[in-house]
Amino acid sequence: MKLTILGCYAATPRSFTNPTSQVLEIRNRLFLIDCGEGTQVQLRRNKIKFSKINHIFISHLHGDHFFGLVGLVSTFMLLNRTTDLHIYGPKGIKEVITLQLRLSNSWTNYGLFFHELEATESEIIYEDEKVLVKTIPLKHRVYTNGFLFQEKVGDRKLNLDAVQNFEIDQCYYQKIKNGKDITLDDGRVIENAILTYDPIPAKSYAFCSDTAYDETIIPNIQNIDILYHESTFLQQEEGLAAKTMHCTAKQAATIALKANVKQLVLGHYSTRYESIALFKEEAETIFPEVLLGDDGASFDF
Amino acid sequence: MKLTILGCYAATPRSFTNPTSQVLEIRNRLFLIDCGEGTQVQLRRNKIKFSKINHIFISHLHGDHFFGLVGLVSTFMLLNRTTDLHIYGPKGIKEVITLQLRLSNSWTNYGLFFHELEATESEIIYEDEKVLVKTIPLKHRVYTNGFLFQEKVGDRKLNLDAVQNFEIDQCYYQKIKNGKDITLDDGRVIENAILTYDPIPAKSYAFCSDTAYDETIIPNIQNIDILYHESTFLQQEEGLAAKTMHCTAKQAATIALKANVKQLVLGHYSTRYESIALFKEEAETIFPEVLLGDDGASFDF
Repeated sequence: MKLTILGCYAATPRSFTNPTSQVLEIRNRLFLIDCGEGTQVQLRRNKIKFSKINHIFISHLHGDHFFGLVGLVSTFMLLNRTTDLHIYGPKGIKEVITLQLRLSNSWTNYGLFFHELEATESEIIYEDEKVLVKTIPLKHRVYTNGFLFQEKVGDRKLNLDAVQNFEIDQCYYQKIKNGKDITLDDGRVIENAILTYDPIPAKSYAFCSDTAYDETIIPNIQNIDILYHESTFLQQEEGLAAKTMHCTAKQAATIALKANVKQLVLGHYSTRYESIALFKEEAETIFPEVLLGDDGASFDF
Repeated sequence: MKLTILGCYAATPRSFTNPTSQVLEIRNRLFLIDCGEGTQVQLRRNKIKFSKINHIFISHLHGDHFFGLVGLVSTFMLLNRTTDLHIYGPKGIKEVITLQLRLSNSWTNYGLFFHELEATESEIIYEDEKVLVKTIPLKHRVYTNGFLFQEKVGDRKLNLDAVQNFEIDQCYYQKIKNGKDITLDDGRVIENAILTYDPIPAKSYAFCSDTAYDETIIPNIQNIDILYHESTFLQQEEGLAAKTMHCTAKQAATIALKANVKQLVLGHYSTRYESIALFKEEAETIFPEVLLGDDGASFDF
């Protein structure tokens, strides 16, 4: 699992900071999460292949999270994309994008599918044989979802030496990888644990931005591996955070602690502070495993 | 008059090239012309004061000319702008912007006025005591206007030595600046030419992008000072230019020559070419006074 942060600053794009967008590579799929203005340029700068992006998840319809989407959709068109593109986001997102395509008298030469979200409870919005994506309803000034990306537990890994030792025929291998014990011709039962290793651990990543401090999200992110949680402000601006329905670094860390996640990635920083290192310092007073998100940073998990 | 080119490349924003946007400073007014994605960052990089922009002119609703507009409108909001903002552009532009503001549950704290254009003949769309702006209907795949910015001829300049010599009272100064002769108390008539110098010459600038080769625009730009004319391709791609309703550098130069403009600025380059110097070389075979537009370039006229 690899997370590449294209942008993680609040409000407006600036000369050296970008609004929210990130790419999650998970079990060989590439998911784009949010798409602030300039995302397509950040994709180029970070050498992300445009053609590998087939699913885009938009948390909410504030400009710093989606104003780059229509440009990306158009650029896919100019690049002669033919693969389907799926966009998951709040109701209204389809109208915004299609209106602009219509006004420019153009249409995509690829399949463009909108999955508009309205639910206020967590729901599965994407599933294939290896990955599951659920919404995490968040509390913000407009309808907002975070997203939980879960790898599915894969097959157990075959212990080749062991299966060859017992002269087990290859036609049983998939059954063994599925966890079954094997009965040999002589009647002996060989336990699966002898024939296999544990599967690659299934990891999980949650994106939670933008949101007020909200403990009701904890059941949705309990015990996950990595939590990206917004931290727009430092604790000294706690009042402003509450008023604007954002969080402080300390609050993000508190959620990480209470949800017992393994690692916390911070982001969505206000540009009012001199150094983003201050966010990490503040969060670490509550929760030890803090990673500082920054534009262009990438993390392997 | 000063032209700052924020972006002058066709199609999509890339790591080092920006879609169309430019700032024209004319008689102390700042006009923004087109607003491709990333324009607000380019404004910052080129140190243009956001607060000085009160009028934005959008040529047409292809993404590379207006996808940055909604972000700029939002940023003005975050910067607590209070001054009115006027946007001139094709019908539909109001719906695009207001839909996105509505979906983000926000509204501008400043007056936002849309002047939607539908006419197919040149019309005056802006006028004050010093400047006049007219549309230049262009031929493109969607409804498109270029814009002609004309300084008005100002007052004649007072020759202070002369008026003091003739002991003319200050209350006549404005009359003199307006070009009137003066009759002294002793009956002598002093011709205005003796009392004044010529006014600052009134300059004119035309923005023509995007457009197919179209000689019908010539009457609208005859004898102007500076013509910015799109040159998406070189002459070797003449067929592609015609098909996509764009121009070659040679065609842009031909228009400049036939319209008898003083200087031609090239732009809207396809990124397929190794060097934009090729555009200047090609244009100069037809018309001598060619300036090569480039992102970040600024020209004083």
